[in-house]
Amino acid sequence: MRDVAIIGIGLTKFGERWEHGMRELMAEAGVKAITDANIGSKDVEIVYGSTMASGRFVGQEHMAALLADQLGFKNIPAVRIENACASGGSALRQGYMAVASGMHNIVVVGGVEKMTDVTTSEATTALGGAGDQEWELSQGITFPGLYALMAKRHMYEYGTTEEQLASVAVKNHENATKNEYAQFRKPITIQDVLNSKMVAEPLKVFDCSPISDGAAVVVLAPLEIAKKYNDTPIKIVASEQASDTLGLSERQSLTEIKATKISALNAYKNAGVKPSDIDVVEVHDCFTIAEILAMEDLGFYEKGKAAKAIFDGETRLNSKLSVNTSGGLKGCGHPVGATGIKQAVEITMQLRGEAKGRQVNGAEIGMTHNVGGSGATAVVHIMKRVN
Amino acid sequence: MRDVAIIGIGLTKFGERWEHGMRELMAEAGVKAITDANIGSKDVEIVYGSTMASGRFVGQEHMAALLADQLGFKNIPAVRIENACASGGSALRQGYMAVASGMHNIVVVGGVEKMTDVTTSEATTALGGAGDQEWELSQGITFPGLYALMAKRHMYEYGTTEEQLASVAVKNHENATKNEYAQFRKPITIQDVLNSKMVAEPLKVFDCSPISDGAAVVVLAPLEIAKKYNDTPIKIVASEQASDTLGLSERQSLTEIKATKISALNAYKNAGVKPSDIDVVEVHDCFTIAEILAMEDLGFYEKGKAAKAIFDGETRLNSKLSVNTSGGLKGCGHPVGATGIKQAVEITMQLRGEAKGRQVNGAEIGMTHNVGGSGATAVVHIMKRVN
Repeated sequence: MRDVAIIGIGLTKFGERWEHGMRELMAEAGVKAITDANIGSKDVEIVYGSTMASGRFVGQEHMAALLADQLGFKNIPAVRIENACASGGSALRQGYMAVASGMHNIVVVGGVEKMTDVTTSEATTALGGAGDQEWELSQGITFPGLYALMAKRHMYEYGTTEEQLASVAVKNHENATKNEYAQFRKPITIQDVLNSKMVAEPLKVFDCSPISDGAAVVVLAPLEIAKKYNDTPIKIVASEQASDTLGLSERQSLTEIKATKISALNAYKNAGVKPSDIDVVEVHDCFTIAEILAMEDLGFYEKGKAAKAIFDGETRLNSKLSVNTSGGLKGCGHPVGATGIKQAVEITMQLRGEAKGRQVNGAEIGMTHNVGGSGATAVVHIMKRVN
Repeated sequence: MRDVAIIGIGLTKFGERWEHGMRELMAEAGVKAITDANIGSKDVEIVYGSTMASGRFVGQEHMAALLADQLGFKNIPAVRIENACASGGSALRQGYMAVASGMHNIVVVGGVEKMTDVTTSEATTALGGAGDQEWELSQGITFPGLYALMAKRHMYEYGTTEEQLASVAVKNHENATKNEYAQFRKPITIQDVLNSKMVAEPLKVFDCSPISDGAAVVVLAPLEIAKKYNDTPIKIVASEQASDTLGLSERQSLTEIKATKISALNAYKNAGVKPSDIDVVEVHDCFTIAEILAMEDLGFYEKGKAAKAIFDGETRLNSKLSVNTSGGLKGCGHPVGATGIKQAVEITMQLRGEAKGRQVNGAEIGMTHNVGGSGATAVVHIMKRVN
């Protein structure tokens, strides 16, 4: 296997992008990434695209061929990956495999979601496609409802409080104020979260990531030729993925995401690092409880200990471990198919030292963690500055 | 790169499977493939799933994790591929890459579509997601309309007739009568096609593939260990894919599918064979005109010559070249995400000598050709009997 590096990144501003369609968002992020990587469109050998539900949001399937065409990649293979909210991370991993295996050199991976062209109710229904439609969603539970069940159980087993849940959102909004690409650039307080409208008890509006438009693109190359294109290639030192049952009712525990645990264990092993080596991590905070689960399942905290640590500020920018410096899904926004790739863009910025007001001091090793549905897919990448 | 073989196949009957949901269809085909391959579920290292529009047909995205779970593949990576009607072929190619590259040994690739839970109008709209939604479909053209434009231009340029188009459907229905998995097992006449209701001039109902439910699964392994599992492994000697613009209006020609031409040229080169070496081929006949285009773009006939040759019977079973022995999309049915994999299952049956009443005598080299949309994706595989 060859070493793989990220040599280019591109991101659109996340948010309600009324004035732009899906293809324009892809093009905006894609042109930035190609420019950043100093490649020509003829250099690209295969493109992976990710979107979760573009069919339901804008009527468009077959998104990868559209991405290839928009970026001028003439007639190369284009492959759309869909793994619900982990579509981006899964696409990144397929791109990684294509380069690591020696099958391809320059590979583009781009994700997008254009969610604001439908009503909130339609969007919520579409997002429910991430869970077990036949056995759970059809019984009336919503997607937030699944995470609410996990939150309730975590509160019951470990004494996690609504204030602790809220502190995740407060931290991520705080980070988002420093990110020009973020959807929400306004700080919020714990009281704001607690006072916000109930969605699915105990999760309130400010416990939930928003409905967003946006796109993110990365360019991958073998590390051995990466410096030809870019002075600061970021090496992907582990790329791991695992699956689990779609339905919560089939699982042994509601307070852990097994797919995250397995991916993380494999990633640490392959990268030869331990949790304490990680300087900065983007985790999948689709709901505040999800970040708490992630911090535990990724091995940063023992089960039941993360909520208090987050509340105590241990995961704020430049504290013990900087978590979701981009603002996360909560603050930066969550255009579903783009999220996993946006996480890689953020970590690349951090490891390059280009994260401006939200830069983690001396960041050398970063991680991304992308979850599909309520944990039926999890993807973990570990990345390293080269020099 | 390692040689890759198909060591197991499984198929459901295609048709209106009212009594079965998507997960049951996947399980039915999957269990057959696993049994056929003589593997245990613990042997499988990664699973690729394909469905085009399960989100719109049954509300379910995240289909690959569901497939993995249904087949008892505990916690392995599961990746859904969507490239419109070429989803199956594209997933097969990703599986091929995973094995050829040496990254994985036993890989399962499964496709499904459950289309009959929505109205015909809803299904047609969903299928329109294969084309350029923003620039073409939104202007009012339907998906059959796109192929109708290609048919009209082919008639104008080459004198192709409606009777010749109809002869494709007649041949494929004839083959389907011999296939126990086929949706339509009733022979039809040219007059039946000509008398059937107009869909988009010149294409009538019998020029169009049907709305179908069904699933298909294959198991892949490195050729070097294939015989451990199966006495008659079928070697994949070429796996090629290309893309093009989604929109017809962006193309130079309406009478060729450029992505097919490129994939085929690369496949012949990599396999070291020429069109005349192929004994049996499954081509993408979503509409009768599509089979004519395919026969030309795959190099079996010069441009403008295929329609007459098909009408004259040159592509009937055990004639000059046996085309769509399964009945094709037209006769066997077209559960979109399953189609590309079903083609591989049919060619495997033919090369194993297991195709019963529709067996091509002495078949040694076979080909599959899977198209997404009106040609924005094409995937070509060439397969060989090993002995």
